[in-house]
Amino acid sequence: MTFTAPVRDLLFNIEHLSGWSGIAGLPQHAGLDLGDVSAVLEEFGRFCADRIAPLNAPGDRAASRIENGKVILPEGFAAAYAQFVEMGWQGLQHPEAYGGQGLPRAVGAAATEILNAANMSFALCPLLTDGAIEALLTAGSEAQKATYLTPLVSGRWTGTMNLTEPQAGSDLALVRSRAERNADGSYRITGTKIFITYGEHDMAENTVHLVLARTPGAPTGVKGISLFLVPKYRVEADGSLGPRNAVRCVSVEHKLGVRASPTAVLEYEGATGHLIGEENRGLDYMFVMMNAARYAVGLQGIAIAERAYQQALAFARERVQSRPVDGSSRDAVTIIHHPDVRRLLLRMRALTEGGRAMAAATAGWQELAHPDETPASCPEAAALAEFMVPLVKGYCTEMGVEVASMGVQVHGGMGFIEETGAAQHYRDARILPIYEGTTAIQANDLLGRKTLRDGGATARRLAAMIAGTEADLSAGSPVAQLVATRLTAARGAFEAVVDHLCHTGGADPNAAFGGSVPYLMLAGNLMAGWQLARSLLAAERALENGSEPDFMTAKIATARFYADHILPETETQRLRITEGADSLLAALL
Amino acid sequence: MTFTAPVRDLLFNIEHLSGWSGIAGLPQHAGLDLGDVSAVLEEFGRFCADRIAPLNAPGDRAASRIENGKVILPEGFAAAYAQFVEMGWQGLQHPEAYGGQGLPRAVGAAATEILNAANMSFALCPLLTDGAIEALLTAGSEAQKATYLTPLVSGRWTGTMNLTEPQAGSDLALVRSRAERNADGSYRITGTKIFITYGEHDMAENTVHLVLARTPGAPTGVKGISLFLVPKYRVEADGSLGPRNAVRCVSVEHKLGVRASPTAVLEYEGATGHLIGEENRGLDYMFVMMNAARYAVGLQGIAIAERAYQQALAFARERVQSRPVDGSSRDAVTIIHHPDVRRLLLRMRALTEGGRAMAAATAGWQELAHPDETPASCPEAAALAEFMVPLVKGYCTEMGVEVASMGVQVHGGMGFIEETGAAQHYRDARILPIYEGTTAIQANDLLGRKTLRDGGATARRLAAMIAGTEADLSAGSPVAQLVATRLTAARGAFEAVVDHLCHTGGADPNAAFGGSVPYLMLAGNLMAGWQLARSLLAAERALENGSEPDFMTAKIATARFYADHILPETETQRLRITEGADSLLAALL
Repeated sequence: MTFTAPVRDLLFNIEHLSGWSGIAGLPQHAGLDLGDVSAVLEEFGRFCADRIAPLNAPGDRAASRIENGKVILPEGFAAAYAQFVEMGWQGLQHPEAYGGQGLPRAVGAAATEILNAANMSFALCPLLTDGAIEALLTAGSEAQKATYLTPLVSGRWTGTMNLTEPQAGSDLALVRSRAERNADGSYRITGTKIFITYGEHDMAENTVHLVLARTPGAPTGVKGISLFLVPKYRVEADGSLGPRNAVRCVSVEHKLGVRASPTAVLEYEGATGHLIGEENRGLDYMFVMMNAARYAVGLQGIAIAERAYQQALAFARERVQSRPVDGSSRDAVTIIHHPDVRRLLLRMRALTEGGRAMAAATAGWQELAHPDETPASCPEAAALAEFMVPLVKGYCTEMGVEVASMGVQVHGGMGFIEETGAAQHYRDARILPIYEGTTAIQANDLLGRKTLRDGGATARRLAAMIAGTEADLSAGSPVAQLVATRLTAARGAFEAVVDHLCHTGGADPNAAFGGSVPYLMLAGNLMAGWQLARSLLAAERALENGSEPDFMTAKIATARFYADHILPETETQRLRITEGADSLLAALL
Repeated sequence: MTFTAPVRDLLFNIEHLSGWSGIAGLPQHAGLDLGDVSAVLEEFGRFCADRIAPLNAPGDRAASRIENGKVILPEGFAAAYAQFVEMGWQGLQHPEAYGGQGLPRAVGAAATEILNAANMSFALCPLLTDGAIEALLTAGSEAQKATYLTPLVSGRWTGTMNLTEPQAGSDLALVRSRAERNADGSYRITGTKIFITYGEHDMAENTVHLVLARTPGAPTGVKGISLFLVPKYRVEADGSLGPRNAVRCVSVEHKLGVRASPTAVLEYEGATGHLIGEENRGLDYMFVMMNAARYAVGLQGIAIAERAYQQALAFARERVQSRPVDGSSRDAVTIIHHPDVRRLLLRMRALTEGGRAMAAATAGWQELAHPDETPASCPEAAALAEFMVPLVKGYCTEMGVEVASMGVQVHGGMGFIEETGAAQHYRDARILPIYEGTTAIQANDLLGRKTLRDGGATARRLAAMIAGTEADLSAGSPVAQLVATRLTAARGAFEAVVDHLCHTGGADPNAAFGGSVPYLMLAGNLMAGWQLARSLLAAERALENGSEPDFMTAKIATARFYADHILPETETQRLRITEGADSLLAALL
């Protein structure tokens, strides 16, 4: 159960898929070269492999628990987190103005994947802090930024998101926590929040809760929700910590997976909070934060897939069982020689690398789109990035569940025994298509906000870019030409579906939204296959220069396998969407 | 988390899919009518719902454990098992000569599904006893049958299968337990067996272990394995229990799922065993037993899917979240109104009912094929039944995992909390594609023994039968005609794959066997869709007579949904098999 950070693949993607020359040309990244990025990721990879990954299985066994209102994390977590903070890893992609390293998002994404592959339960804490930083950068006042950002970026303080309540799972319109204004401009926050990741723990000096609540007389529904900052310990004017705030953890959930990560029920009993931005605009701000968090959860899907793949591959190389079907040995061989084990491993690898590739491309667009940091903000990149977020979240998390399940399968009976460790990935992965918005919610976002709202323009822009890659492939090697054929077919299915949905979306929303998840899975599949096809072209160029033949040959093989075995699934999804609505809507349930 | 046995659907399948008139015409079932079958299944369904299902979640929480060599089952299991025995349920499908009820296999299969849906961990004990009964009926001596069958059929004694050893997971050629002949004709058995389901427990008076071992000088590999009967308590000539045999449980596994079912490591230390059948023919006998066990594990896949579906449906009818996409309500509605929840539920239902339908058809062929009981043994039915066993096992268990995972998804965040119960099904289901031969092993059986060996004859016979159903559908209602179109396309994919595999199987076994699991999934998908299409025809006939309109309408809708949304997956599988071998075999791993 050792873990090696996939730094080579991550660097390949940063260089070839994320638009590195554009990123490196941005003023805030002046002087940054790939060698620097490589050094950072190598060091972080070693840290995660040596210090964080070994806590993963013991953390799962121990799980977080609550005793007398105190949350107790598994042994070793606090010490490892202290080292994580000391080395400055929390600030990797955050602004230098607040003590961060200001590295590009593509690099931050690579680091997030590595940390999550090492230990998803541990990584959830920094991941939520990233979200709080994002929200404050977007909507915090200058005073709030000055007070809270530096300790958050350092990791000394951690962040949480408090959205859900018992009656309001995914439906934030149902939120009913109350916020009443005090004379000094602060608010008294009262209510119960559930599913709060790292809602209570003692690894950090303070925790900054971002809380959705309603002010008296606010409009009903989502337009009456405001966002508040509620620190666990109140913060004095000089930044020092004051008394404990009126928020307490009343229980910690008993979960299927990520058991070391404490999922808290928090009771706010007139806690002192501070309004972020304007009243009633909480959901707008939360969406900024959620976009970052959703993308990060997509990275978790890739991460768990990578971890499951590494473990399955190591097992398949060692386990001796049965003679080969081709009669090439009279003795039993390692199971990696059996064609179906090979099929499972290649599917795991292709899904993992495909997800990673689309996440890298998305990080590139996000960087170019980010208005705070790019003087010439790029609306096209923004539209592409926004289109991709539900795909990265939805596709890569569904994929993560599938890959973790295949990882169990490669292990056979040993996979079902908890001590082997493969089962933990299967359990951990299962939260990913649920939290930060279920796959269906991602699909609604993709269809409603990202496709129908612009009449399919961004979707068709992507299709045109894919057609460009097809042209490059068609002019290339025989393998590239084979991949071009598959990509053309998958793009055709995508375009047919976009046309169909744009046509039916207004007239028959039930029919259109009944196809929303198939549309998401089709689009995610295509985008991953497209980015792997771009990888193939880059790898063929590198091979011509004699560069790293093993890595480049494997990359080409993965892209080809993806094209032959995974891209064709798009056609089934197309049929479901364009011809399956009647049978979906007719049935009584 | 209440459970209702799906008796109506099971009866429908027995009547319309399992060739009931042929079964009822067999001499051993003379006088049996569907009313009798209905009464038995209704009573068993009530017993399972009232007595067995409530132990499922507490059993998972408590889990089986070992203390001082004694295995302790969760509270309530022993009492419930005693009642199961007292009511005679173990003998449902076993011969009347040994105290059973001698009911047809299709009825036994229905009961097995019900018991497993109620509580898979509990049901594993009777399931293994069924296997031991099957093995003794096949290969036991008359004296062995006389001594062991009556207590096994009553359930007073339970059975186990001891195949696997630490170095021999799926590869029985690697078995090295030893069996040395004593002067009295018995054998001394020595060795370690792992993964022994209900290998040790105190619910029954005795346990009959069926054990694979090698006699001195036996040929190497699978041709040197013999099958032995090793009772936990030695049995005296008069059938009374003698001293404890030299077999002991040294540990119980800590598993992902079916945690209430004790999975034992058994140490045989010169235990007294009795040869079953002839020396070195153990694997042949074990295959008979395994065929029955594999079919039963397929039923477990259907069972866990049914249980997960019932739970998800109940949740979706109660949980209020978000306004409908069609604007039909300004308030939040129950989530069953959201198109993607509907899609998930319908996919769960269609996969479950499709699996059940193919299992029912298979049970019918098994009944007609069974040489012991059918004077005019039917070789064609035998070939069909043998072709279907790896499909029922492989397809229905992979489907069970998927349905259980969708069940978690329908629950959203609540699904990840263990107390909800959806997560248990996801954990329990995961063993099903592994034990009794992984999906890859089923696929090797399907391709090697069931397809290549007869040059594809049985596969093509099934295709011809499907074409017959298509003709009936094409002459029917508009919905039937739509289903015919999908079925024709899926059958075409199947025939193309059979031709391809028969062509490449000998010349390039790696290429052929690399497509074996896709072939299994394609064939399973088609067989389930075919049987649902037959169900549609039967339901339309019943509707014309005004019979049970709600049930029949739902059945038609399910068949149609399956045809539109699931049958088209066969085309992707065809592509993988006929065009994907190069990319599968070329990649370095």
